Amino acid sequence: MRILIINGPNLNLLGTRQPEVYGSDTLEDICALTMSELSRMGAEAECYQSNHEGELIDCIHRSQGEFDGCIINAGAYTHYSYALRDAISSVDIPFIEVHMSNIHCREEFRHKSVISAVCRGQIAGFGALSYILAAQAIVQICDEG
Amino acid sequence: MRILIINGPNLNLLGTRQPEVYGSDTLEDICALTMSELSRMGAEAECYQSNHEGELIDCIHRSQGEFDGCIINAGAYTHYSYALRDAISSVDIPFIEVHMSNIHCREEFRHKSVISAVCRGQIAGFGALSYILAAQAIVQICDEG
Amino acid sequence: MRILIINGPNLNLLGTRQPEVYGSDTLEDICALTMSELSRMGAEAECYQSNHEGELIDCIHRSQGEFDGCIINAGAYTHYSYALRDAISSVDIPFIEVHMSNIHCREEFRHKSVISAVCRGQIAGFGALSYILAAQAIVQICDEG
Amino acid sequence: MRILIINGPNLNLLGTRQPEVYGSDTLEDICALTMSELSRMGAEAECYQSNHEGELIDCIHRSQGEFDGCIINAGAYTHYSYALRDAISSVDIPFIEVHMSNIHCREEFRHKSVISAVCRGQIAGFGALSYILAAQAIVQICDEG
Amino acid sequence: MRILIINGPNLNLLGTRQPEVYGSDTLEDICALTMSELSRMGAEAECYQSNHEGELIDCIHRSQGEFDGCIINAGAYTHYSYALRDAISSVDIPFIEVHMSNIHCREEFRHKSVISAVCRGQIAGFGALSYILAAQAIVQICDEG
Amino acid sequence: MRILIINGPNLNLLGTRQPEVYGSDTLEDICALTMSELSRMGAEAECYQSNHEGELIDCIHRSQGEFDGCIINAGAYTHYSYALRDAISSVDIPFIEVHMSNIHCREEFRHKSVISAVCRGQIAGFGALSYILAAQAIVQICDEG
Amino acid sequence: MRILIINGPNLNLLGTRQPEVYGSDTLEDICALTMSELSRMGAEAECYQSNHEGELIDCIHRSQGEFDGCIINAGAYTHYSYALRDAISSVDIPFIEVHMSNIHCREEFRHKSVISAVCRGQIAGFGALSYILAAQAIVQICDEG
Amino acid sequence: MRILIINGPNLNLLGTRQPEVYGSDTLEDICALTMSELSRMGAEAECYQSNHEGELIDCIHRSQGEFDGCIINAGAYTHYSYALRDAISSVDIPFIEVHMSNIHCREEFRHKSVISAVCRGQIAGFGALSYILAAQAIVQICDEG
Amino acid sequence: MRILIINGPNLNLLGTRQPEVYGSDTLEDICALTMSELSRMGAEAECYQSNHEGELIDCIHRSQGEFDGCIINAGAYTHYSYALRDAISSVDIPFIEVHMSNIHCREEFRHKSVISAVCRGQIAGFGALSYILAAQAIVQICDEG
Amino acid sequence: MRILIINGPNLNLLGTRQPEVYGSDTLEDICALTMSELSRMGAEAECYQSNHEGELIDCIHRSQGEFDGCIINAGAYTHYSYALRDAISSVDIPFIEVHMSNIHCREEFRHKSVISAVCRGQIAGFGALSYILAAQAIVQICDEG
Amino acid sequence: MRILIINGPNLNLLGTRQPEVYGSDTLEDICALTMSELSRMGAEAECYQSNHEGELIDCIHRSQGEFDGCIINAGAYTHYSYALRDAISSVDIPFIEVHMSNIHCREEFRHKSVISAVCRGQIAGFGALSYILAAQAIVQICDEG
Amino acid sequence: MRILIINGPNLNLLGTRQPEVYGSDTLEDICALTMSELSRMGAEAECYQSNHEGELIDCIHRSQGEFDGCIINAGAYTHYSYALRDAISSVDIPFIEVHMSNIHCREEFRHKSVISAVCRGQIAGFGALSYILAAQAIVQICDEG
Repeated sequence: MRILIINGPNLNLLGTRQPEVYGSDTLEDICALTMSELSRMGAEAECYQSNHEGELIDCIHRSQGEFDGCIINAGAYTHYSYALRDAISSVDIPFIEVHMSNIHCREEFRHKSVISAVCRGQIAGFGALSYILAAQAIVQICDEG
Repeated sequence: MRILIINGPNLNLLGTRQPEVYGSDTLEDICALTMSELSRMGAEAECYQSNHEGELIDCIHRSQGEFDGCIINAGAYTHYSYALRDAISSVDIPFIEVHMSNIHCREEFRHKSVISAVCRGQIAGFGALSYILAAQAIVQICDEG
Repeated sequence: MRILIINGPNLNLLGTRQPEVYGSDTLEDICALTMSELSRMGAEAECYQSNHEGELIDCIHRSQGEFDGCIINAGAYTHYSYALRDAISSVDIPFIEVHMSNIHCREEFRHKSVISAVCRGQIAGFGALSYILAAQAIVQICDEG
Repeated sequence: MRILIINGPNLNLLGTRQPEVYGSDTLEDICALTMSELSRMGAEAECYQSNHEGELIDCIHRSQGEFDGCIINAGAYTHYSYALRDAISSVDIPFIEVHMSNIHCREEFRHKSVISAVCRGQIAGFGALSYILAAQAIVQICDEG
Repeated sequence: MRILIINGPNLNLLGTRQPEVYGSDTLEDICALTMSELSRMGAEAECYQSNHEGELIDCIHRSQGEFDGCIINAGAYTHYSYALRDAISSVDIPFIEVHMSNIHCREEFRHKSVISAVCRGQIAGFGALSYILAAQAIVQICDEG
Repeated sequence: MRILIINGPNLNLLGTRQPEVYGSDTLEDICALTMSELSRMGAEAECYQSNHEGELIDCIHRSQGEFDGCIINAGAYTHYSYALRDAISSVDIPFIEVHMSNIHCREEFRHKSVISAVCRGQIAGFGALSYILAAQAIVQICDEG
Repeated sequence: MRILIINGPNLNLLGTRQPEVYGSDTLEDICALTMSELSRMGAEAECYQSNHEGELIDCIHRSQGEFDGCIINAGAYTHYSYALRDAISSVDIPFIEVHMSNIHCREEFRHKSVISAVCRGQIAGFGALSYILAAQAIVQICDEG
Repeated sequence: MRILIINGPNLNLLGTRQPEVYGSDTLEDICALTMSELSRMGAEAECYQSNHEGELIDCIHRSQGEFDGCIINAGAYTHYSYALRDAISSVDIPFIEVHMSNIHCREEFRHKSVISAVCRGQIAGFGALSYILAAQAIVQICDEG
Repeated sequence: MRILIINGPNLNLLGTRQPEVYGSDTLEDICALTMSELSRMGAEAECYQSNHEGELIDCIHRSQGEFDGCIINAGAYTHYSYALRDAISSVDIPFIEVHMSNIHCREEFRHKSVISAVCRGQIAGFGALSYILAAQAIVQICDEG
Repeated sequence: MRILIINGPNLNLLGTRQPEVYGSDTLEDICALTMSELSRMGAEAECYQSNHEGELIDCIHRSQGEFDGCIINAGAYTHYSYALRDAISSVDIPFIEVHMSNIHCREEFRHKSVISAVCRGQIAGFGALSYILAAQAIVQICDEG
Repeated sequence: MRILIINGPNLNLLGTRQPEVYGSDTLEDICALTMSELSRMGAEAECYQSNHEGELIDCIHRSQGEFDGCIINAGAYTHYSYALRDAISSVDIPFIEVHMSNIHCREEFRHKSVISAVCRGQIAGFGALSYILAAQAIVQICDEG
Repeated sequence: MRILIINGPNLNLLGTRQPEVYGSDTLEDICALTMSELSRMGAEAECYQSNHEGELIDCIHRSQGEFDGCIINAGAYTHYSYALRDAISSVDIPFIEVHMSNIHCREEFRHKSVISAVCRGQIAGFGALSYILAAQAIVQICDEG
């Protein structure tokens, strides 16, 4: 089983930016943690990050055939990128939406996710743990697949 | 560590009602599963269900001092019970909001949760697995306490 | 054929409260009238009233298996109780929504019914006669079943 | 007692158009059924249908003095014809609004009726039976008149 | 100078319908009064009434070349007939919008006129006098023309 | 009969400001014209202008007992001064709302008048003629008293 | 004179919950204070608290005939319980709405009270003093009867 | 193959009305052009125009059985005639919506089409060419039929 | 302790204007009553009224240093004067907002107060008694200071 | 004459993604078809696709001077990319907006195009044929140029 | 070159009110600073402040002929004074809107300026420096004038 | 002191695109002007432009550590790029938002800036001068830093 972990804009700064909101782990820390968890469950994983909407779409397109499932933290694109939404619905593998912060209790514009409707589920508010939980979920979903 | 699992209106019918949305596990199945997972992590747990908004509020009030954390699936009250929200914010233990279905891609009225703002995080869309993931999250949150 | 007649909050005061809106018949009068009409059509009936949202949900749950159809006047819960809506959609028997007053020409908040979408039809504005008409409708719907 | 049954746009196609929504009875069938029910209750009736908003208004104007009550299914005009609403409020006889389908659970634009506020009551969702129930209601209202 | 006075739906019932809102003058009274005022100012006039949106549009089309100005009371079509609006903007003569009642202090839906934007001005709230004032205005506008 | 003509903010600049919208008559010209028309009908008149909301309110208060009717062009206060509205409704004489331009076809914020609901009627779009027509209307309304 | 003091959801936790918002007085303290004030004015009083919407409705129903006036702090039900609103309007005694905090400057959802329209007045923002002021008001209102 | 071309309100004035928006071709010119294009593709065609909503509905009803496809320019009815929408969905042949102007960049009210949802596609903004393109589309759709 | 009582637009007409809404006491009566109540509690008071938004702001500015607290009935300015709101928040003494009528059950525009957010609390609906209650509240607040 | 055909995000997956919505033709098929149609009319064409908003903007900028007209299917960027809109309005050649599906009858967010206002016209709902029709339109527009 | 600096409500309290938002400079300091900057650029300046909307309007009217340009900080009137907006658009000299705080990131009601549309530009968020920058801008605009 | 000047989509076309809105200076002209102004104040500067949202984000990230402040004209991304907003708030240096045109008086969608909340201030409407003013502001802010 192969899992892709996609990270959107500004997540490359994790650990440095607003640590009171996002914690002090870097994206590398979080990816390592998640990949080790996936490895423990017998799955291989790959981590991707880009600040470019178009590159994220390209990456989602490439996932088809190469991966069995995807964990995505689309950052601020979550709230307006209908292009990302179409990309997700154009590949056949399951996606899980993760957020480190509880987007439902921050600024109004963060309450709405335009990609939720094309993901299996959403995990938000647990910091790095959001990724670990998503790892477990995606493995189980792929197993049931 | 003691964890309370609160289930709101109509969840007593799980397994019989709209299985295409909620799966075929009964609430008893799900609670047993979650409690066994919590037990595996060394936590004790208790399961509560009521269709009565007032009883759910009473139950939340009683949790203070008796439990270290709470997993709550407030059912349809999620979308309008500001009284439940006030109850949650009136006790000091952490709450995690769970939903079996992905509420973000169902009817418009289910997109908004009035209790999100007073919970640590939200897990939605994974059926019974939503509870298991919440169990892991609440244990970790209580551990970090 | 067994029909359940469910009456929501404040309907216990019928005949005393705002007679210019609701007429002078008491709930007992109306239930007796409706049950006699149902009896005339060969159906048995039972009448239930509660001011408690939770008890109304419990009652709807119990109707499955015991009744063939249901007439419901949910009172003010009509306008916000998504929990009641979920309860109705969780049982397999047909529901008819009745209102004594014409809710469509009263205060703005009474124009919207959150339970309409899970009921077969709506009868509003005819006072006690709303129940009689609903009785005829539910019998015919159950007959066609 | 004389009752007028007014049918608005596209209802002449009943029985042929979207039978899964409106059933297979033609407008003639439904009118015959309703008139026979009215006749059984000692009332005379007349049936009118037009796709023209203006003709429907003219017809409502003519009803004054010739009829004691009116059953109206205004079709799609229900949702925007304020001219029809003014016509109804300009004559002194009672009107009952009927709909074959449950307009409250179809497209958003069908949820609002601009004529409800000038009708005695509304019956929606029972197919041809909506007319029969309206017949009983209008006779009782005229009797009490 | 030739002036056309166009009257929309339900205005044929003036004097009989809701006299507390519209007064007891019939449309014939009002038209006679207005035409005599126009005649006093040296203008010929013609009065037209229809409940049919399409006939009102046809009538507006015919006005071009035959009349120098138009007074229009579009009744309830005022509030939604964009077709009437397009008709008015498709002919070259000036239009004045009149209303007998003060539409700005009645039901919400009467506050908005979709034809205002294509009329020279609006006179509302003076009963039959609204027409007389409009007569004076249209004569002056045509004189300046 | 004594009539008061109240003019709100910026109307002192009439004739100089945006002549393509408001014409080239000064406020003095318009007041003279209106007063002469009122005089012709046997009424005395007085003209008042202020850019100060408070002074306009004071002026309206003083009108009671001294005047039989009032013509008001509240300028931009038309669109938000609820204090002016309360002032008008606090005196017993009839008010007529005038506007030189057709406020219904200018910027969105000019479409709504917060004083319409407490005035007898509205005349808009006829330049200086709006005042003349209002003069005729107020005299007739006072005559009918 | 007999006065009922009704307290809604979560008010049983007063003094323990968010003391920076609600102060450190318990509900018992506040009720004792209010009852002593009422007693000083010669009125008897009774205090009621429930977290259950239905029980609050039942309690309001029972007040008729037993009490001359009512002070109600409906807690979060203030913002959505139309059933509570109907209950209040179904009994003949005067109600005064109190809030300890200034609901008008907290979260958006707390700005709107659905019960204001059926209460005599509202007192908000004075902590325990809100109850004392309400006690004085209700006594005066009952005296004026 | 037989194609019907339906034209709504005010289109009879094409070529005379607002030529800067709609060009100088008359409706006759456009219909002749379109019919000749259809003829070139081996299809027969008929052209219909009415300013009457009801006649347009009647015409749509008659199209069933007589025509294989329909091109419709509903004029201003596009924006509010739900009756026209129901008429289109009540016949089995494909409809194509055309507009001469680009309705998406004119007044706000022209941005929304209530008939789009029941048409195969929309062509807007190309003047007479909109009809020619629609002719090609309808022929291809009917061929694939 | 010195208390300022500020009264906004149209309140100078109290006792004459809409007595069914505001009672028959004049502003002088009410101020005398309130000042006597304040005097009874050992506080000096001063009464101010103006219809001018600017003068009310000036008055609020002058209150700093001269008064210990303020009771304000801002009349219609309550609903839109953000300048008044800024004035209140620019001085350091506590303000209490009073209304004689229950603004929450009158016209829609009166439901919102733009000054609530900068006042300690709000008392509405008790006529002259609103001022008396406010007097008690402001004294207690100043005492607690 | 040189025509540019621009294709936005996810259109590279045409033929594989949701064939029930978009058909089974690949983007290569569609571009070949359109270019051959353009060639038949004597125009040269070039096809461009990118998932990157920035690259699409760059491409539009380059079109000036190199192409005489442009056909654009902006995919999901249609609904929110104001940057694309500015790019289109910054070059002098005509643009035609195409969509394969009828965006007006899909999800709410697809009903609005932010680029319509800067395009000549819109063609939506005809699958690959949308491109062919656009090809004819752009050639005619450039010819008239 | 003569420049007028207009300051609206509550700005007389600058330096004392909410220093964390507005800094500790008084209005006198800021005006002196700005006038010295203007003087440095060879322009004369005058400073005006009033809390009265009407006086601000009068002042704007007087500026015509006496000044070549104007810097305006309209305080809270920025957000609702359409009368001020009309005043600005009624004089021929250029206006620049300044704000000391960044109004775009404070309360919702401060995000909208009703005077922006009639000013050349807006400078917000730089404290006293906002005035200095505006001084440079107005001089350059007047120079180009 | 080092200042970064970031320019968003379509700004590379400055001087060629809509000169009536943006003037005839090219971006190179404006950057040169601004850099020379900064140099005059002793600051070094660098100019960056990209049409790609992702590259702008990357550039903002790189600014940390290399620059002391930033001037940003985000073009159309101003109105919807929450990703840009997050990027700005993720670096520690101050940002100033500039616009050449007065965005507050153009199309509705340009009235809202999603980046204002994370910038120190906004300067809009002065063409190239907007950049010069921003240069002065950023230097002063960095000096105070």
